[in-house]
Amino acid sequence: MATMAEDGLVIAGRRFGGRLLLGSAGYPNQQVLLDAVQAADPAMVTVAVRRISLAGYAESLVDVLAGRVLLPNTAGCTTVRDAVLTAELGREALGTDWVKLELIGDNETLYPDVEQLLRATEELVGKGFTVLPYCTDDPVVCRKLADAGAAAVMPLGAPIGTGLGVVNPYMIERICVTSAVPVILDAGIGTASDAARAMELGCAGVLLNTAVARARDPVRMAAAMAAAVHAGRDAHLAGRIPVRTQAEPSSPQLGLLGS
Amino acid sequence: MATMAEDGLVIAGRRFGGRLLLGSAGYPNQQVLLDAVQAADPAMVTVAVRRISLAGYAESLVDVLAGRVLLPNTAGCTTVRDAVLTAELGREALGTDWVKLELIGDNETLYPDVEQLLRATEELVGKGFTVLPYCTDDPVVCRKLADAGAAAVMPLGAPIGTGLGVVNPYMIERICVTSAVPVILDAGIGTASDAARAMELGCAGVLLNTAVARARDPVRMAAAMAAAVHAGRDAHLAGRIPVRTQAEPSSPQLGLLGS
Amino acid sequence: MATMAEDGLVIAGRRFGGRLLLGSAGYPNQQVLLDAVQAADPAMVTVAVRRISLAGYAESLVDVLAGRVLLPNTAGCTTVRDAVLTAELGREALGTDWVKLELIGDNETLYPDVEQLLRATEELVGKGFTVLPYCTDDPVVCRKLADAGAAAVMPLGAPIGTGLGVVNPYMIERICVTSAVPVILDAGIGTASDAARAMELGCAGVLLNTAVARARDPVRMAAAMAAAVHAGRDAHLAGRIPVRTQAEPSSPQLGLLGS
Amino acid sequence: MATMAEDGLVIAGRRFGGRLLLGSAGYPNQQVLLDAVQAADPAMVTVAVRRISLAGYAESLVDVLAGRVLLPNTAGCTTVRDAVLTAELGREALGTDWVKLELIGDNETLYPDVEQLLRATEELVGKGFTVLPYCTDDPVVCRKLADAGAAAVMPLGAPIGTGLGVVNPYMIERICVTSAVPVILDAGIGTASDAARAMELGCAGVLLNTAVARARDPVRMAAAMAAAVHAGRDAHLAGRIPVRTQAEPSSPQLGLLGS
Repeated sequence: MATMAEDGLVIAGRRFGGRLLLGSAGYPNQQVLLDAVQAADPAMVTVAVRRISLAGYAESLVDVLAGRVLLPNTAGCTTVRDAVLTAELGREALGTDWVKLELIGDNETLYPDVEQLLRATEELVGKGFTVLPYCTDDPVVCRKLADAGAAAVMPLGAPIGTGLGVVNPYMIERICVTSAVPVILDAGIGTASDAARAMELGCAGVLLNTAVARARDPVRMAAAMAAAVHAGRDAHLAGRIPVRTQAEPSSPQLGLLGS
Repeated sequence: MATMAEDGLVIAGRRFGGRLLLGSAGYPNQQVLLDAVQAADPAMVTVAVRRISLAGYAESLVDVLAGRVLLPNTAGCTTVRDAVLTAELGREALGTDWVKLELIGDNETLYPDVEQLLRATEELVGKGFTVLPYCTDDPVVCRKLADAGAAAVMPLGAPIGTGLGVVNPYMIERICVTSAVPVILDAGIGTASDAARAMELGCAGVLLNTAVARARDPVRMAAAMAAAVHAGRDAHLAGRIPVRTQAEPSSPQLGLLGS
Repeated sequence: MATMAEDGLVIAGRRFGGRLLLGSAGYPNQQVLLDAVQAADPAMVTVAVRRISLAGYAESLVDVLAGRVLLPNTAGCTTVRDAVLTAELGREALGTDWVKLELIGDNETLYPDVEQLLRATEELVGKGFTVLPYCTDDPVVCRKLADAGAAAVMPLGAPIGTGLGVVNPYMIERICVTSAVPVILDAGIGTASDAARAMELGCAGVLLNTAVARARDPVRMAAAMAAAVHAGRDAHLAGRIPVRTQAEPSSPQLGLLGS
Repeated sequence: MATMAEDGLVIAGRRFGGRLLLGSAGYPNQQVLLDAVQAADPAMVTVAVRRISLAGYAESLVDVLAGRVLLPNTAGCTTVRDAVLTAELGREALGTDWVKLELIGDNETLYPDVEQLLRATEELVGKGFTVLPYCTDDPVVCRKLADAGAAAVMPLGAPIGTGLGVVNPYMIERICVTSAVPVILDAGIGTASDAARAMELGCAGVLLNTAVARARDPVRMAAAMAAAVHAGRDAHLAGRIPVRTQAEPSSPQLGLLGS
């Protein structure tokens, strides 16, 4: 299979080798995680600071992923104070000031609390962090996050773990067109075509976890996701045909036999 | 990007190196066609017999695609007699008894005429052809075509040239589950995620033309389609997570800070 | 609630008082069926000939629906011979030459066998029946059925009993635009908005059964369906706004305070 | 057509005679507006305060809608200060402390600025207003608005004027299930089936404007919307059948002829 020269994801001035970000939670075991990471070859691997920080397990996960770019996240945080503290723990534990900011407002939908998210972003940017906030598919929130100094915005495709894909493609596309910072689709991806679709809408990257970790064969799904992100990126750059509701022959009708 | 070992498409006992079939019509020029074919590296390239048969142009297209597996099609045929005659011309011109059978019943939607399609399939099978009929997304028609000896069935995703993708995923999936012969999704593909989706539904392959030929950058789109077909096939084999309408955390809530 | 003057469904020269057709199978009991019929006030009520023909039960159902226009159907038939015989039994039992022709080709999807359906339609038309065939959402099949003398065509929205709604709105709309006879959407309706949507696409009527019979409250759902068919018909005639992917203010920006 | 006894919309302790709210902007002329209002018989008619406040035109619109429950809105406002001032003007002009709060954060998508919306809601509630805020389809924002004292929440189905319908039915349904105050779907409705669908998801009401005002026949569309809201409400209460991806016969297979 031919693929085009990779055109590169750049966030906060740093260039990455791919456009897929992979979460590290929920795999059947650590070997499967490792194999999936190898199959996906992601730009970054996200790790939950709260899990890293637990002695023992922490070192092990970080050791296991040695050589990978790790992105600590604040999964499970529900207040600005909690998220800021967790980000600081992550900085210390992993030696990076990059953080995926999660600030959850609802335990059922795991939707972010965008009001607090804006405040936490401001505060963390003020403390020198490179902040990638997980947010809603709301173009106003995305613009405000960028204005507050977020290095990228990470709108959801659908609630975490649902596998519904990109429920509101109109708004994701709109955010991609207008955002001053890279847009990483985060959450909701269920299968490869969802990841491709996110990229086709103009996203700079895709972050996913459950779709790989809980697939029947996580390693094969990791490979599928990597190929899908490439495919979607290329399709975006290639400029798809418009959607028509009327058929149009691919083989021209001119020069038909006997005509 | 890692990809898994290719698991191979087999039709009528013949093994192919990929699962993408590419049409050869409507490219900006022959060089772009060539480059797209190289980027996609398709299992087969379909060619319209009526265009081959026109002296001069014919040789050129066949020469240009030397080394590729060519699959003649009966594009533009509207009667059994016409389709059978065209298939015979294709056999002579290309030295193959394989034929993609198109028998159009409506110039607006380019939908097949399934009643005549069944008769033409029977007749061509009787004449020793390996017949791949372009048909509707109708499980009864697909079963009858297989019963009549078709080597594969090629249900449409949407009308030719529309780029609507797979409009009826339920029925395509059903056909894949029940078909005794390989199912190749044919027509309607607009972009890479559509091709991935078709494969995820269980299709053995995807045939497309307009989505590549009329993309702004056909060669890049050809690469995208090849990657998408791989991705969709791997995702199908990997067993996707179920769709849920409720969120589920990817990072476990156990061991949260302070708990 | 205001509703516009009813514009009338006409099939084979006969005018009906509404555009909803209701099936009579699968209700919790006969009283619920009766109440649902009263709430829906349908143009016709379909009855399975095979059930009518069983002595005892038959009279009862027909008696119960006295005063309603009954449309016998050939549910459960799988061959031309079987369907024709069943239609003849229905004609005798109910004293009508109208028949909803069902000729099933697949016990799993309950999809019609369109090849046999065409033959049965021809044969029944030849015997003086007014034939309303249940068919696929295939514009070529619909045109051929009309050419064969069908008084209306009844393409499916989705497989019987699924409640998926109108899976292929493009093709249903296309069939409505081109059909020489009325188009009645049959099968697949799950709830009121599905029925409204079918009418908005241009259908002349909607036939449904399971969505009412197996709703938690069949009588209320029957009323909902009647209102939805009215709503969808009016919306179709009213000419909806085009779909846009960009917002447009409903309150004009002119004359803003201070401007 | 039978309809069930109306079950009544209650907001802030006040009972309304229907569940449709209609906007008053953008009609071809005032007579059409009047006729549409009569055909829809809405629970409330929204009016833009900025337009009311312009001398001359204002009285006329209010006079014309005499006898209707008017709901002033703050269309066009982009700051808390602006929205509060406009609400106060509306209170004075219309003698009501009810207000539909619009606080727009983006001129392209007309998405609300949810951060400011929360502040404006708090402030207006503090000033004794009954506040119905137009918001995103974000369950956390909806809960916070209710916590801040909003009498209802009005999440969008899609951007204003697009006619895309309810783009994220999962989240609208979720908001309906969890909200402590009535949920009125606001914006995005294109046609009758969209309004029915919103009600089926559990909304207490639907607010729309462009879909009626800019239909080819606004009066007929107004009637369609009224019927659709009834239909959707009844369907919601009736408990729809589950969606299945496999067919299920409506006519039982038992007792088939000859069996």
